[in-house]
Amino acid sequence: MGMTMTQKILAAHAGMESVQAGQLINASLDMVLANDITGPVSIKEFDGAGFESVFDKSKVSLVMDHFAPNKDIKSAEQCKKCRTFARRFDLDNFYDVGEMGIEHALLPEKGLVCAGEAIIGADSHTCTYGALGAFSTGVGSTDLAAGMATGQAWFKVPSAIKFVLTGKLNQNVSGKDVILHIIGMIGVDGALYKSMEFTGPGVASLTIDDRLCICNMAIEAGGKNGIFPVDDITKDYMDGRVQGDYKVYEADADAEYEKVYNIDLSGIKPTVSFPHLPENTRTIDEVGDVTIDQVVIGSCTNGRLSDMKAAADILKGKHVAKGLRAIIIPATQKVYKDSIKNGYIDAFIDAGCIVSTPTCGPCLGGHMGILASGERCVATTNRNFVGRMGATDSEVYLASPAVAAASAIAGKICGPERSK
Amino acid sequence: MGMTMTQKILAAHAGMESVQAGQLINASLDMVLANDITGPVSIKEFDGAGFESVFDKSKVSLVMDHFAPNKDIKSAEQCKKCRTFARRFDLDNFYDVGEMGIEHALLPEKGLVCAGEAIIGADSHTCTYGALGAFSTGVGSTDLAAGMATGQAWFKVPSAIKFVLTGKLNQNVSGKDVILHIIGMIGVDGALYKSMEFTGPGVASLTIDDRLCICNMAIEAGGKNGIFPVDDITKDYMDGRVQGDYKVYEADADAEYEKVYNIDLSGIKPTVSFPHLPENTRTIDEVGDVTIDQVVIGSCTNGRLSDMKAAADILKGKHVAKGLRAIIIPATQKVYKDSIKNGYIDAFIDAGCIVSTPTCGPCLGGHMGILASGERCVATTNRNFVGRMGATDSEVYLASPAVAAASAIAGKICGPERSK
Repeated sequence: MGMTMTQKILAAHAGMESVQAGQLINASLDMVLANDITGPVSIKEFDGAGFESVFDKSKVSLVMDHFAPNKDIKSAEQCKKCRTFARRFDLDNFYDVGEMGIEHALLPEKGLVCAGEAIIGADSHTCTYGALGAFSTGVGSTDLAAGMATGQAWFKVPSAIKFVLTGKLNQNVSGKDVILHIIGMIGVDGALYKSMEFTGPGVASLTIDDRLCICNMAIEAGGKNGIFPVDDITKDYMDGRVQGDYKVYEADADAEYEKVYNIDLSGIKPTVSFPHLPENTRTIDEVGDVTIDQVVIGSCTNGRLSDMKAAADILKGKHVAKGLRAIIIPATQKVYKDSIKNGYIDAFIDAGCIVSTPTCGPCLGGHMGILASGERCVATTNRNFVGRMGATDSEVYLASPAVAAASAIAGKICGPERSK
Repeated sequence: MGMTMTQKILAAHAGMESVQAGQLINASLDMVLANDITGPVSIKEFDGAGFESVFDKSKVSLVMDHFAPNKDIKSAEQCKKCRTFARRFDLDNFYDVGEMGIEHALLPEKGLVCAGEAIIGADSHTCTYGALGAFSTGVGSTDLAAGMATGQAWFKVPSAIKFVLTGKLNQNVSGKDVILHIIGMIGVDGALYKSMEFTGPGVASLTIDDRLCICNMAIEAGGKNGIFPVDDITKDYMDGRVQGDYKVYEADADAEYEKVYNIDLSGIKPTVSFPHLPENTRTIDEVGDVTIDQVVIGSCTNGRLSDMKAAADILKGKHVAKGLRAIIIPATQKVYKDSIKNGYIDAFIDAGCIVSTPTCGPCLGGHMGILASGERCVATTNRNFVGRMGATDSEVYLASPAVAAASAIAGKICGPERSK
């Protein structure tokens, strides 16, 4: 029987002719990633296990993005642990205040992850890099510690669901709407421990940023990973970023999928996930009258330059609603700088937004925009669980940058059309 | 006997011909200020006292600057209390995320404080506005609550120390060096409950930003207030900002001063306050070899446009030392935007710094750059008490933006000359 794209990558990294769903394998790794929350835990496991070296100093990344610049002494000590570890092993890819960005935006941007690779990260949204045709997934801190030391990890080979994309997205509809639509359709456990493999002629109409956003939220459907085929758009993105070769894998024609969904991109409307699960989706025409206190545009899901552009295009020359706090968080220093160059930051400030240095910040209730009791936020982030962004009775509504920007102007949830 | 400039202002606000040092008076207020830390406490006192209105909705300012955008649920609830109060009384000057800035930079910038006024704020650095020829001072939250309700406050009329300034500052020497020099000379209680009145021909060579910085730190010498005479530079600054008239007061020729210090500005060198008191000053040639982990450029003391320029001029085309975190915090949205326009932000990012949205942040150990155990920071802030910016065994060195920027490049404390 044939293999899925994910299975092909895993087989190659396990040094095997073929693998099948459910099989336990040991795979070599191309990148091992942790952040300032999970890094210290992994380092403790690393030390506890008696490891004395990393497998490859160019293949271990530590990114200080969750609570940096540090919000308190505890987070300062966490970053210090990572810093000390990075110096001890002379890691090539330690990203601290000043060089940093949100990990899942930074690694693709810097060409540190690419097609055909197997990547683990101690962060659930590590599945992002499937957009480039890599197998990447989140792991626990113990697996990460072993990965840093040995360059290997064990996996149960996932089965897969195929999403056949056709058509093209309408204006003001983006990858975020696609993945929210899908999660609404299949539920937050709809792809539990499965690969979400995207394919079909519609893929060619999706930008890399759309694909990064879609794969980023595969975990919100329970997916082990999300993955796109490698096409000219992928290659264009990787050329000039990725040093050395990358390898392109394709699913076999007779690969087995547990389910196949056909999705017409042109039929997808701007979509919002209501509290308190990403699967609680409504299309923009179904949202009703929901007033909001805060808008957050950023995160590993939607903090890239195209996201800044989508928001700036809507906010330019407008002003956010009185009493509403709008927080814009470019995902990396490069996105930040390019946003200045393109006038987006000016547009944000003139519209009454604030612009934060790159950080995960409010997405996980970390800092830089925590909600008080009863407050509501429209966020371009990836999770809207109870208390995710602050008080247990606060509410987070997940949406695209376009919807978030329009909602900021209106002071209630709405699509870009209504803000004009 | 004649009155000092401060006494003249207080007498006028008490409706009295004259006052003298030590006298208890009740004065009318032109502005009453609180922030997101002190506001909620004052509001609780306000409610507890049964007050049901503010004396003038245009003369009560609430500025959310210490922990906004909120770092945690507690700070979110504090801002919410202020927001609710501001809406209840329809306050004209409530500054929230998006409109905000650090209070003591924001109020002068917006023309909300001016010459001849009497101003109280529930924040010790309220003394800043003396730069414009106003009497302004920090008060406790109970006095502030009464001030919000009645528009009055009691004061013990302060005696005064006169600082006669002559000469001109050398290049790369600024108001920060002047005030650190003075605090080093007279000690942290050298002006306890006294007015620090600056005068002499040297005043004309100081910019408004220099004067704001100098008055800002009057409290660090224990001063009740700091105050500058009103000259053409002050008037130029106020024109176009301040709505309505302002009143100019001058000290009587026979005013009494407890002490008079003559200071030749041309003799002041870049000055650094070593841990853990602002009075522990050393000139830049005496600092020795102090390696540092972090640099913070910002705060109500040094977050204005001229501070950004001073830092950018030094950082442009350079890079901060490897392993050093450099955090730049424009004090207001306007400073931020003007810094973008002037290319300062680009220079900072290229130099490996991060730029924060306006906040007091790390100055008070709030957020956005807290220090871990044993770490050292050069900061343009105003206090270097034990644990002020984080761990109890961390260290803060106070300096000017020029020294801070140069130190960021060198990775150790040094003057601008050594960074070139």
